[in-house]
This record gives sequence, structure tokens and C-alpha cells, in this order.
Amino acid sequence: MTTTPNELVLDRILNAPRAALWRCWTEPKLLEQWFCPKPWYVTDAVLDLRPGGAFSTVMHGPEGEEFPNNGVVLEVVPGEKLVTTDAFLPGWIPSGRPFMVAQVTFEDAGDGKTHYVAKAMHWTAEAKAEHEAMGFHDGWGAAADQLEALAKSL
Amino acid sequence: MTTTPNELVLDRILNAPRAALWRCWTEPKLLEQWFCPKPWYVTDAVLDLRPGGAFSTVMHGPEGEEFPNNGVVLEVVPGEKLVTTDAFLPGWIPSGRPFMVAQVTFEDAGDGKTHYVAKAMHWTAEAKAEHEAMGFHDGWGAAADQLEALAKSL
Repeated sequence: MTTTPNELVLDRILNAPRAALWRCWTEPKLLEQWFCPKPWYVTDAVLDLRPGGAFSTVMHGPEGEEFPNNGVVLEVVPGEKLVTTDAFLPGWIPSGRPFMVAQVTFEDAGDGKTHYVAKAMHWTAEAKAEHEAMGFHDGWGAAADQLEALAKSL
Repeated sequence: MTTTPNELVLDRILNAPRAALWRCWTEPKLLEQWFCPKPWYVTDAVLDLRPGGAFSTVMHGPEGEEFPNNGVVLEVVPGEKLVTTDAFLPGWIPSGRPFMVAQVTFEDAGDGKTHYVAKAMHWTAEAKAEHEAMGFHDGWGAAADQLEALAKSL
């Protein structure tokens, strides 16, 4: 895979089958169950699986914080790859400050396990540093643990 | 169509059939013949017609100026719609300063004519103003004249 200077990467072998992980990523009611590290949680997930389709969630914090996230799908390879970004609203409308592209890929790793790579690719070094300071590694890591547990339970 | 505050629009009835206009937009050797208002011209057009595929050209000016433009395809609806942007390089790598999304749509308008709408949608009001000052309306208008003439000749 290409490496870019402004990317952050989570690279894991997850103990769950690829098809179940794909479902957890692409079915809104499943996505809501793992997408945010607890005690934070997500509601109102919308995922229109086509280039330009909506990808939005609302994140909620334990103190009543509420953060809507609105973006679009860039690319879908069923069961293998999903790419999204906050740089557009549906209709390819450029939105606010483009922060990142999120790309997840899934590969069979044998024994019902999956090689899972989640990349956050940023437009600037500042955005990458900001994301790292916000806790990218812990946050995406904890979410991946939740994803793995949910996928195994399906 | 949705209107965004930072968009510039060229809306024309072109006296050429939709299929011929589509070919002029999507076949690199045809694209090179009309894409830039003369005496400027384009070489090295690359167009990989799928989400995330390369869309690049090199623009040349009469004084030897040379401007490479590198971007990607966002969406393709054959014969109807093509959306590209300079915000990424292939691989969805966020690139430099995201300037705009270019969306062109083609609709049959009867009598072998086509309703052609070309939109430039920008991330900021500054980028839109800059594009307008660079001569968006004259430039895209002159290119559309060249496009129409080439498509009629096919």
C-alpha cells in the first residue's frame, strides 16, 4: 500500500471473519454498536454504499456532548474495501474544512481471522498531528476491539 | 440540482449529440483537442473512468508555460455524468490544497442537441473568487465551444 506523510494507520489481525466485519462496518444498526469507544456512542448512522452516497453519524459523549459527522462514501469494494471522507456532503458539495479520508481494508488471514487495516489520511501535517493528539491510536484501537467482539458474536 | 454558495456554473444547449460529447470528455485523445481554450492546449491526458481513477492533464501555454493537473474521478454515470476533483491523487491520497470539484452532466435536449451543465464547486469563497478572476466564464465557455465543434465533427 502507498504510504503518505500525513497518514495514521491501525493494522491488526482481528479474530472474526471478513464477512461479519464487513456487516459491522456497513449495516448502520451494527455500526452504531461499536464505532465509538465506550462510554461514547453513536446514533443516527446513515450509510449509502455507493460513490457519493451519504456516510453520517452522531457521536454522543457521557456528559451529553453531541457531535454530528457528515460525509460521503468514496469507494466500495464489497467485503474488501470501504473509503469515506468528510470533505464532501452528498452531491459532492465541498464541505467546511476537509479533514481526512478514512480507508478500511479487509483480507482473509486464515482460521476465520481477518487482516484489518484502517487508515486516516489527512490533507495537512497539522491535521494529522491534531488527530494523533485527539487519541487516534487508542480511540481507533478500542473501537477495533469492539468491532471484533461484535463481529464474533454474529 | 443543489446550488452551493461556492459554485460556478456553465449551462448550455450544445448542438451535438450526447454520445459524441461523452466521447469527447472521456477519450483522452479527444479531450486533448478541446479541453483548453486555444492557443493553450493539453497533452498527456489520462482518464481512468472509475471512482478513484486518475484524471490528469498537462496544460501548455503559448509562451511555453506548462501546468500539470493531477486529480481523480469521483463518479461516473456513462453518458450522463462525470465528476472529478483535484483534492486527491490516485489511492485517495489527499493532495495539496483541495481547490474544486468539477461536475459535468449531459441530457438529451431533442434534435440531436444536448443540455450541458458544467459546475465548478469550491471549498471556499476565496477559491471561487480566484477561479472567477482567472476567467472561469470565458474559459469554460470557449472550451465548450471547442467541445461542441469537435463532437459535431465525429
